[in-house]
This record gives sequence, C-alpha cells and structure tokens, in this order.
Amino acid sequence: MSALYHVVGVDMGATNTAFGIVDARGTILSQNNIHTGKYSTGEEYAKVLSNAIKLLITKNNLNNEIKGIGIGAPNGNMHTGAIENAVNIPWANGRTVPLAKIITEETGLSCKLTNDANAAALGEMIYGVAKGMKDFIMITLGTGVGSGIVSNGNLIIGHDGMAGELGHVTVIKHNGRPCGCGRSGCLETYTSAVGVAKTAREYLSLHPNDTSLLREIIYRPITSKDVFEAAEEGDKLAIKVFAFTGRILGEAFCDFITFSSPQAIILFGGLSHASNYLLDPLQKAIDDNVMKVFRGKTQILFSQLKGAEAAILGASALAWE
Amino acid sequence: MSALYHVVGVDMGATNTAFGIVDARGTILSQNNIHTGKYSTGEEYAKVLSNAIKLLITKNNLNNEIKGIGIGAPNGNMHTGAIENAVNIPWANGRTVPLAKIITEETGLSCKLTNDANAAALGEMIYGVAKGMKDFIMITLGTGVGSGIVSNGNLIIGHDGMAGELGHVTVIKHNGRPCGCGRSGCLETYTSAVGVAKTAREYLSLHPNDTSLLREIIYRPITSKDVFEAAEEGDKLAIKVFAFTGRILGEAFCDFITFSSPQAIILFGGLSHASNYLLDPLQKAIDDNVMKVFRGKTQILFSQLKGAEAAILGASALAWE
Repeated sequence: MSALYHVVGVDMGATNTAFGIVDARGTILSQNNIHTGKYSTGEEYAKVLSNAIKLLITKNNLNNEIKGIGIGAPNGNMHTGAIENAVNIPWANGRTVPLAKIITEETGLSCKLTNDANAAALGEMIYGVAKGMKDFIMITLGTGVGSGIVSNGNLIIGHDGMAGELGHVTVIKHNGRPCGCGRSGCLETYTSAVGVAKTAREYLSLHPNDTSLLREIIYRPITSKDVFEAAEEGDKLAIKVFAFTGRILGEAFCDFITFSSPQAIILFGGLSHASNYLLDPLQKAIDDNVMKVFRGKTQILFSQLKGAEAAILGASALAWE
Repeated sequence: MSALYHVVGVDMGATNTAFGIVDARGTILSQNNIHTGKYSTGEEYAKVLSNAIKLLITKNNLNNEIKGIGIGAPNGNMHTGAIENAVNIPWANGRTVPLAKIITEETGLSCKLTNDANAAALGEMIYGVAKGMKDFIMITLGTGVGSGIVSNGNLIIGHDGMAGELGHVTVIKHNGRPCGCGRSGCLETYTSAVGVAKTAREYLSLHPNDTSLLREIIYRPITSKDVFEAAEEGDKLAIKVFAFTGRILGEAFCDFITFSSPQAIILFGGLSHASNYLLDPLQKAIDDNVMKVFRGKTQILFSQLKGAEAAILGASALAWE
C-alpha cells in the first residue's frame, strides 16, 4: 500500500544538485547531494545522478515504491524534458541535454523536468501557502528573478515549454541596466539580489552626502545581504534601496495582474527575507497603479517553505502530476 | 440527430446586440438584432433578448435542437455569468447584472458569458486562424484594446473571471496619455483606433512643416480611418503614425511573449485592416526586443473571420464548451 506514495525531488543548481525522497505529506525522508558542473557531458552527469538516486531509494527500502522523479533545473523544458542552453552549467552551455529521458532509462522511473521557478510554484501549490489556489504567480528573487505562473490549476508553459520568464519583462525602456539575457531594462536587473546590490552602489554614489553603514564596506563589493543587514540596523539609505526595489516590483506586478488576475503573488528566495522592507512599498505601488477592476484582489505572500527543502519539495511535486 | 448541433451566439455591443444560430461548421444560419442600451434595467433587456432568441429558434424549426447560448459582452465575467459595471451601457453602469442566469430562466437553455475579446479568442480557435493552436493571444484593436489569452487550450480567466486586460498594461510610465480606466500610459491609449487618431493629431502639431493629406481635415476631428486612407494614398505622416503604433504594440508583445510564450498573437478589429502599415514595424519591434529564447517563435497573424460574423461566431464558441 505504500507503493506510489513516495516521489523523488531533484533540485538542480549550477554548482550543486540536491535530491530527496518525499512522501505524500511533503516530508523529506532522506536526501543527498552531488556536484552539478564537474562532469564533461550531460550524459555522465545524468548517470551519476541516476545511480545516486537508486542508492538512496535502496538505502530507504523503497524499491518499487516510487511513483516518479521530478526535477527543477535551469532552463528546463517541461515539454521535452530537456535542459536547453543553461549557460551556467558547462555541459549544458549551448547544448540541449535530454536529462529526463536518460534518467528514465537509467532508473526505470518516470521523470519530469521543468525550470526551478515552475517547480517552486508547484511545491507552493501542493505543500505551501498556495495550497488550494488555482490562480497564482510565484516570483523567485535570487541571483536572478524567475517565475512560475499557475492558471486554473495548471502551469503556464507556453507552446514551446519555456513560458513564464517574468524576470525579463522590460521595466525601464530607455537607458535600462544591461541584463545577462543580452537586453536591457529587465525586471531582474533591478529586483534580483544582484540588482539590489547595484541599486545600493548607485545610491551611494548619487547621494555622496547621505551617511550610511554601507559606506564602511570598502574592501569588497556590497551585496544584497549587506543592504539587508544595514536596513536591520535602521540604515536609511538601505531602507530606501528596498523601497525602490519594492516599487519597481509592485509596478511590474500590476501588469502581471492585468494578464492573469492571480489570487496571490508569492515571493520566494533570498531577497524575500527582506519582506519587512519590501512589502510596504510593493503593496503601495500596486494600490496606486493597479487597474480598478483588480484593486485589492491579489494578495502578496511570502513562501513559508524552508529554503533548502523548498526546492526539493517543489521539484518532487512534478512527480505527483 | 441534429439535436445539440446548433448553438446561439450573441455579440453584445454598447449600442446594438447581434445574435445568430450557428452550426458546428461555423455557418450562421440565421441572425437578428436588438438595441442594447435603450432599456431601463438589465432584466428588461434580458427578457427582450430571450424572446428574440426564442423567436429566431422557432422560425428556423430548431426547437429542442440548441445546445446552448454563448454571449460576448463588455465586462462579462465567465465565472459568474454576470456583466460587471459596463460603463457604456446605462443599465449596467455601476451595476452587476446576472445576464446568463436570467437568459437561462427565460429560454430554458444553458448560457455562458465572457468578455468580447475572450469570445473572439474562442471563435478564432474553433473557426479561425488559431484552429489547432493551444497557446495564443488574441488582441482586439477597436475603439479600445481588448485581449483573450489561451494557454494550453484554455482561456486564462483568473481567480475572479476578469483576467486578460492587456489593453491596460502600462507602456509609458511617465506622462503617459490618460486612459478611460482612470490611469495613464495604458497600451490602449496608443494603439486603439482612438489612440491612432490622437497620435496623428500630435504628429501634425509637433511637425508643423510636414505636409500631409490629414491637414485638409479641418471641419471635424481626424479618425483612424482618415489615417488609414491617407496611408493608402502614400501619405508619409500617416504611415509614420502606424509605424509608431506598430512599434508600441510590438514592444508590449515582447512582454506578453515572456509571460505565456504563445505560438501566435492574432490581431482582430478595425485597426487590423491597416495590417500593411502595422505589421513591419510591429515585427521589427519584436525582433529587436524579444528575449533570445523566444526569438522567431511567435507568429503575428490577422484574423480572417469577417468582422460582422466573427463576433457572433466567437460568442457561439462558448456554447460548445
């Protein structure tokens, strides 16, 4: 009777791949890690990962009791099960690697794959604050800005499996910041952790007479964590940096709401720890700018899943589908 | 055997309501009209419409052979079947009218209702250029700009039934044109028929030395039709007006593509007749600005359904669902 009541979730980052066995209640029974980038081909990585997963299953006496494997991966395409040109992973840079297919061949288990933010959205819907919601948007605020959009209970993946790149809507049309995607003015360049650090450095140089704890950091580049810690000390400039970030996010959310009218927008990832400093300006930007018909309808929530576990849970959610 | 192989489509405009009996191949067998706005209550309108529909069905000997009624209406909410605060219809201004419910009571037929652009999207999917597509966006370019978004074969209607207001994404953040929605800088203010006429008037006053056929129109306000006709005569200023319009549309489409990665964006409505002048600048704006992963993937198409029939067909498509 325990058969099919467990799944494997794989959170594949550029450096490290964490994976675990998850039960239907969202408890991670057992987990492990392998390196991601150090293999010379995607095939080699896939085989090492498959063996490590099989070992974990055997160790937990769950052979023949696993429903499937779900993977959240950079540039993961849900239609094809492949990783498409993930520039930060040497073996996937400029290449398409049919990861799900290889893992199924190696493990005998069905395997689904999608990008990290889509996996996080599924995790939130099954185990997190979006439980019971059919229309919501997940925004991941990390080194970059990712998104997973759920409409009527289903992920929006588009005709090519690659939809939901809301970190790359254009928020500043002229003289916007250059983005890693090759364009400029993308939401990500202002509201990722990297963007917050950049805003702080800009504010410091634009307002040379404003005192700030951040001016003491001279021996290395300022990070978003520095800005958060300064804000926690009551540093006015740091608080202004988050207010700017929240406003840019809120204005972008008004357009997202216009598109899919979600019940909630859920923030996840490193920056969401700064919720105290982000939420008020973000909410104000929405209240000031959203179309009247949508006013007061969309909640802004923060993920309650613990960082390290959330990604595995999110990926595992794919395997229940 | 002909039972359930016919539906009724109702295209409700602010002034006129057109309705017709449609067969499964998308042929309108018979149609009629009533006024929309002249009744004092929504109930009165709904009863007159119900009687007119029943009469049309009887005349065509199709009693007991109608699967249902589909209505495309301003501010129609698919979840509730009601018209919510349609400002241009006196009996629905500031009120919620449960139109679908009343019509079902009066006719004994199931009745579904959605906004005009969603109905147009369904019509395009069943009878038009989106046949066979599961992911596309319909943009209606008329007095206003509406949208219907289809993802994985389903309309995106959001948690409140009101999603897909892409005419009201903000395209100009500072000093944008005032919009009927109470905000400013909305896509609609630049790319609707009204927006095109406004752009023409702005160009004429900003470039007083440029000759243009449009300068001959002095006894009444310039319309988008004037701009189209001038463009057809080779008028350079008129052609520039469409180039500007196409660029604004194309830049907005880049964000839409980022959201739902549609196979096509389909243009419908009065302005789409200016396709020759809109398409090149629109396509160029997409090619220049869209995220690399989506480049060359989304087709820009024009509806091939005939204007007067398309709205009835679109609404009728709801009744097959």
